[in-house]
Amino acid sequence: MPRGTPTVIPDDGLTTRQRRNQPVLAVHTGAGKGKSTAAFGMALRAWNAGLDIGVFQFVKSAKWRVGEEDALTALGELHHSTGVGGPVEWHKMGQGWSWIRHETDISDHAEQARAGWREIADRLAAQRHDFYVLDEFTYPLAWGWIDVDEVVEVLGGRPGRQHVVITGRNAPDALISAADLVTEMVKVAHPMDAGRKGQKGIEW
Amino acid sequence: MPRGTPTVIPDDGLTTRQRRNQPVLAVHTGAGKGKSTAAFGMALRAWNAGLDIGVFQFVKSAKWRVGEEDALTALGELHHSTGVGGPVEWHKMGQGWSWIRHETDISDHAEQARAGWREIADRLAAQRHDFYVLDEFTYPLAWGWIDVDEVVEVLGGRPGRQHVVITGRNAPDALISAADLVTEMVKVAHPMDAGRKGQKGIEW
Repeated sequence: MPRGTPTVIPDDGLTTRQRRNQPVLAVHTGAGKGKSTAAFGMALRAWNAGLDIGVFQFVKSAKWRVGEEDALTALGELHHSTGVGGPVEWHKMGQGWSWIRHETDISDHAEQARAGWREIADRLAAQRHDFYVLDEFTYPLAWGWIDVDEVVEVLGGRPGRQHVVITGRNAPDALISAADLVTEMVKVAHPMDAGRKGQKGIEW
Repeated sequence: MPRGTPTVIPDDGLTTRQRRNQPVLAVHTGAGKGKSTAAFGMALRAWNAGLDIGVFQFVKSAKWRVGEEDALTALGELHHSTGVGGPVEWHKMGQGWSWIRHETDISDHAEQARAGWREIADRLAAQRHDFYVLDEFTYPLAWGWIDVDEVVEVLGGRPGRQHVVITGRNAPDALISAADLVTEMVKVAHPMDAGRKGQKGIEW
């Protein structure tokens, strides 16, 4: 979309530059496709702007986003070898978070999800990344595994200019209210309905 | 999204493998964000699967997707230097299509758009790419610059296994009907509404 002119100039005492540099909290929700895909598309822009990217995949099996993981990880390696773009870290809950893989096993999914969120909260406090993708993070919220109010408080108080994109169906109202940008992906037609199966390069 | 089980097994005489390999025509439409971004996110998966990617940007100024262009072009170069992933070509109408830049100038936008479509139709006939992004292609269709029925006919008759993703608001009904997968991006909240301006790494 074009970089349109704001419809309202807020009376917040900020200059345009200060306002431009405000961190964004985006939520991609709804039953349609493209929630995670658009988040990873945003990561392309962030990478090109030299931002430090951290992806945290909740819930899903590790294999379901292997295409995006391999491609974005390749861009992260390109950054390390040539200096272009930004670094990329990719963490997933499916096989146990990498940072706890060698510690005590956490077999309970709810506890795994909470361990992921604790790490993210720590990284936000430390300003570890510039651009976070919390993929499928709405599910542990919707299932009550992680406290939504705590998440909203931590995100609202995050220091610096850290952008966060959260994906998944059924985003809780408190999260929607806290977000700067919410897009609902609505399913209009899908080949699954006609009996097709997913295929490599398209679905994963 | 998970690779779910189809809800209907079609009586089309195809095996699951044949059905899996059917080319997909996807449309991302609606007033919300993420239409193009999700298309470029899909290109990440396609790249990783080794598919040959062709991006064709209609209408927009060249600078608006520079982040995605640079990142996907970097992946295309990585393919050429290391063999991983697939090749990437990126063409845009904003500065004149690359393949006609040195021929007679086409100053009329409608004629430029038609020239872009003619090239795409030729490439589809020749099976030049495996994965096409026709970014903002709905606008020249909605404005009557390019005939929708002809587009639907060419897309419907395209040979081989060429996937096509078309983005933009106001997708014509005939295109929606012809698509295998349609997602409407609905705007729920947007920082522009609060007087924010776009920022590098997020908006472009």
